[in-house]
Amino acid sequence: MKSRSLLILLALGTLVQTGAQLHAQQAPGGRGSAPAPLRSPEVLPDRRVTFRLNAPKASDVQLTCECMRDTKGVAMKKDDKGIWTATLGPIAPDLYEYEFTVDGVQIGDPRNIVVKYNSRPGPISSVLNVPGDGPMFYDAKPVPHGTVDIRLYDSKATNSVRRAYIYTPPGYDKGSNKLPVLYLLHGADGDETAWVAFGRENLILDNLIAEHQAAPMVVVMPFGYAYPPSAPIPTGRTQGPDFEKDLMENLIPFVQANYRVYTDRDHRAIAGLSMGGGQTLQIGLHHLDLFSRVAGFSPAVARAPYDAFKDIAADAKKVNSSLKVLWLACGSDDSLFTPVKQFSEFLTASGINNTFVPSTGAHTWINWRHYLQEVAPKMFPGDAAMKMSRSTGN
Amino acid sequence: MKSRSLLILLALGTLVQTGAQLHAQQAPGGRGSAPAPLRSPEVLPDRRVTFRLNAPKASDVQLTCECMRDTKGVAMKKDDKGIWTATLGPIAPDLYEYEFTVDGVQIGDPRNIVVKYNSRPGPISSVLNVPGDGPMFYDAKPVPHGTVDIRLYDSKATNSVRRAYIYTPPGYDKGSNKLPVLYLLHGADGDETAWVAFGRENLILDNLIAEHQAAPMVVVMPFGYAYPPSAPIPTGRTQGPDFEKDLMENLIPFVQANYRVYTDRDHRAIAGLSMGGGQTLQIGLHHLDLFSRVAGFSPAVARAPYDAFKDIAADAKKVNSSLKVLWLACGSDDSLFTPVKQFSEFLTASGINNTFVPSTGAHTWINWRHYLQEVAPKMFPGDAAMKMSRSTGN
Repeated sequence: MKSRSLLILLALGTLVQTGAQLHAQQAPGGRGSAPAPLRSPEVLPDRRVTFRLNAPKASDVQLTCECMRDTKGVAMKKDDKGIWTATLGPIAPDLYEYEFTVDGVQIGDPRNIVVKYNSRPGPISSVLNVPGDGPMFYDAKPVPHGTVDIRLYDSKATNSVRRAYIYTPPGYDKGSNKLPVLYLLHGADGDETAWVAFGRENLILDNLIAEHQAAPMVVVMPFGYAYPPSAPIPTGRTQGPDFEKDLMENLIPFVQANYRVYTDRDHRAIAGLSMGGGQTLQIGLHHLDLFSRVAGFSPAVARAPYDAFKDIAADAKKVNSSLKVLWLACGSDDSLFTPVKQFSEFLTASGINNTFVPSTGAHTWINWRHYLQEVAPKMFPGDAAMKMSRSTGN
Repeated sequence: MKSRSLLILLALGTLVQTGAQLHAQQAPGGRGSAPAPLRSPEVLPDRRVTFRLNAPKASDVQLTCECMRDTKGVAMKKDDKGIWTATLGPIAPDLYEYEFTVDGVQIGDPRNIVVKYNSRPGPISSVLNVPGDGPMFYDAKPVPHGTVDIRLYDSKATNSVRRAYIYTPPGYDKGSNKLPVLYLLHGADGDETAWVAFGRENLILDNLIAEHQAAPMVVVMPFGYAYPPSAPIPTGRTQGPDFEKDLMENLIPFVQANYRVYTDRDHRAIAGLSMGGGQTLQIGLHHLDLFSRVAGFSPAVARAPYDAFKDIAADAKKVNSSLKVLWLACGSDDSLFTPVKQFSEFLTASGINNTFVPSTGAHTWINWRHYLQEVAPKMFPGDAAMKMSRSTGN
């Protein structure tokens, strides 16, 4: 029974990045008399993790990992067969990006099938999954599951066909009631797949909805660049205005024409991380007619003197009566911590109600998954969150 | 206008692997006075392609690419700044996997955002996109687009939650008519994402349906392993039977409960590539009560004496009256070419009608995309394919 349970947990854990990915790393080695294939990363029973790389000709291999606070990395050690090894931890259960640097070239772990890809050229990373004692809040649990739709839509704003990921909650297909919508934006190195592939948006929402913490909602994840990141932009201006135009004029109408959603501002929210957090504040605070809930996760905020938000600051009363949620969060090891804190202070000094949640951690998905779990129930609370809110007065 | 058109083509080309990926590779270098970032791969106007890697400390860098018939690869050359370069081609328009091997360690191209991930541990590859003069059959064209649903379902057969990708054709949401279903299986290093991420199933079907070559159909892409590839299997048997049990007892019922599809054998087809081609023949030919169309793409077929297919061979009449399509294809550079040809000959010698299509090429997605384009209209023809079929007698 025990190994059966373990298998179920393992199988549940697989469901995210791609069907099989999240554990070949924990699978046993080869069969019969064949030499065991190299295992990396190997999570040991005490949650220390061993990383291995076969590189006999290399003279220097470094390991960097989000699981280490020191971003410089550690030197790996070579054995007489040319296998480089380092063991870290114990490491707290979570998902972490890591890389090897082989004689100056940064690479992903060839023995790990979970690859962290980006929307901008740059080194490939791998993802370490340190499992918890049971399923984590971002793991697939035995609860009803929603669907993620991969949708293409015509974007007149950018004169192109664009792609969005759209989450619908469990039972959406069979229901008839309208739902609120959260527009959820990725960061500068991501794309429309990032919140599902690395942020586990669908599993986090499945779990929140099953626990009645969050109300069933549709979550729309657009591609946050108007054009491929370094493509020529025909108008000569920055991407931001064209992305905003696409969102307003093409994506929101597409969602409203194709999904059973409310179309009033009271049922529309926007949130985003890093670059997408900056876009969220820029778009959300300047379109109070469209959004009633706004959240920035480690947002790339405008710096003082906050010229772009003068109009908002001048009309605090309208902002306060319009926004049900204005929520900011950032990790203390994030270089954006002070700017985000100062932006919150600017809002407060302007008389604008807002919440700033300082957390631990850096500019990573570790925080963004937690922030989504925390803010989704504040935006569209489920029965349990509403009861809690009434009893605490929050 | 010209640059605008180019932009549209570029934007259309982006839509596959992830929103932005398919062209950062073709985007211009840096801005202003900053040094231009390294471009790799760079597709030149004559379709030669230059690959570049920054690795000053490396002493040997090799390039391997599906675009070369020689699988040994070519040596790249280092300049005085430590940039390694190789130029290949001209290369025919298509999508190709490639890798660098740096002092014996195989890596993806750090400057290319299109990463080829696998379901089994192994080196990471990158994807080269050599564009055609216009959109290719696997590119997004300005036609109506279907949706790919990322679905989780309970699998009692494997005691786990599993994931499938399910394509529904343009207009499915608004329609009311039932549709035929194709179950489409990936290969040994793939997973349920592979046919969309690398096979472009959705765009190929969108284009075939727009041209009335294929009828609107639902395409179900399961995860072809019952368990993570090298995980322990509780029953001690191979994965095949448990995958088949999951497909029969859990996935097909899930699809029929959640999608507007016909449930009779005449509207159900199965196809697959490599390992999935072997599964397709094994499952399809032994379940004539369930499937009326069966296609193996470079299938990993059973070898003579074909014990597993004795029962089929003994009942050719029933097979012929049951199957509308029994189709096999393989490339002449594929090590499976002779086994597939021999399997077709075995079927023919047994009196079983079948089509074997020998093509050029090797064991790659280049062929599998073409095979899907060729066989989908044979399985469920659109109006244009039916007219063509009537006029040629095929």
